[in-house]
Amino acid sequence: MSQPSTLPHRAQVEYLVRRVLYERLGKPVPRLAAGPNPLVVNVSARHCHLTQEAVEALFGKGHELRPMKWLYQEGQFAAVESVTLIGPRSRVISNLRILGPCRDINQVELAFTDSIALGFQIPVRQSGNIEGTPGCMLMGPAGFYEMPDGVIRAAPHVHMHPDDVAYYGVADKDFMRLQVGGPCALSLNRVLVRASKDFKLEVHIDTDEGNACGLQPDTPVQLLK
Amino acid sequence: MSQPSTLPHRAQVEYLVRRVLYERLGKPVPRLAAGPNPLVVNVSARHCHLTQEAVEALFGKGHELRPMKWLYQEGQFAAVESVTLIGPRSRVISNLRILGPCRDINQVELAFTDSIALGFQIPVRQSGNIEGTPGCMLMGPAGFYEMPDGVIRAAPHVHMHPDDVAYYGVADKDFMRLQVGGPCALSLNRVLVRASKDFKLEVHIDTDEGNACGLQPDTPVQLLK
Repeated sequence: MSQPSTLPHRAQVEYLVRRVLYERLGKPVPRLAAGPNPLVVNVSARHCHLTQEAVEALFGKGHELRPMKWLYQEGQFAAVESVTLIGPRSRVISNLRILGPCRDINQVELAFTDSIALGFQIPVRQSGNIEGTPGCMLMGPAGFYEMPDGVIRAAPHVHMHPDDVAYYGVADKDFMRLQVGGPCALSLNRVLVRASKDFKLEVHIDTDEGNACGLQPDTPVQLLK
Repeated sequence: MSQPSTLPHRAQVEYLVRRVLYERLGKPVPRLAAGPNPLVVNVSARHCHLTQEAVEALFGKGHELRPMKWLYQEGQFAAVESVTLIGPRSRVISNLRILGPCRDINQVELAFTDSIALGFQIPVRQSGNIEGTPGCMLMGPAGFYEMPDGVIRAAPHVHMHPDDVAYYGVADKDFMRLQVGGPCALSLNRVLVRASKDFKLEVHIDTDEGNACGLQPDTPVQLLK
């Protein structure tokens, strides 16, 4: 398995340049550049997390996911492998990306636009909380895998390191507001805090939310308590 | 052409019942029920407005749009007729609904999800302000019609009667906030006011915005200055 790139993320470079510039100019550092880490907002397109057992059922005995693109969170990747999702009304979504590494539960994360296209209703849940959620069938080159549950819309959430939790004055499982500027300005008012020493500060929204606010790399964003 | 239904809209009935109940109970009428008119929020799926000339090119000489479903704004309807939209990269959207009656410009209103599927970029514009916007080809049973411009994402907006304008203390072309509650709570912070004596109080959002906030008939909504 290839290693993640050691190049810093664009958001980190911008953040450091901004801080240094304000300091050199002798100006007060604005709130956005004052936190311990840059605020990164990323749009998650539909995807799934699978167990090793599911990967082997779909891709063959002993198969291991291959990283195609490393994500912002350490060690997480979009895999080369994708699956076909077959919904309860036999409608399909092709090329559903698998995110690795494997987890201990199977979970499909869709936007409402996707679930409407598939013709069924899915609940908004925190990742991992899949009890009582609808299931689906997955199809891969080596076979099928039935998920009895696990199809959700992931609640918008923010990954936070303990340094970020302290700076923003929040706790794990709190809700925060993400304020997005620009021509389609909106505020997401229930962004769930997920704190861990393994996390880097990053807000995850889905494609419905990303398209509603027309999020671009230069769109102004603010995270508020 | 058949006439619009004279039955009151569900929102109007609920609004009246709510007001009367509070009055009977001797309780103060809450803000939501205190305005001169009920607040109705509707999601507009992708659609187009056409000139009579375009309708005849697509459906044949002398063809008139037939109402399939009357909309909340007086005299406006979803037509029986729909067209196929061919985008700049030859990708298509079938069954694009036409809204009637005919107007003096041609305009296609898509969500960003739609424009991404078609593979091109569209601007956010107020209805009617289509200068410099991309065009598309439309296909109907009687022929093609080329639109040199007019493909937009409509900015979220609120139709207001002068009574509503007075109650909310705003003016035509102002921006308001629409606060949506529930599990996907969000605020749309640039909702354009469109005032006319012919309008009934109604917020129009698109499917990206509607899916982002998971709008249901019982989702709490508030319109704020």
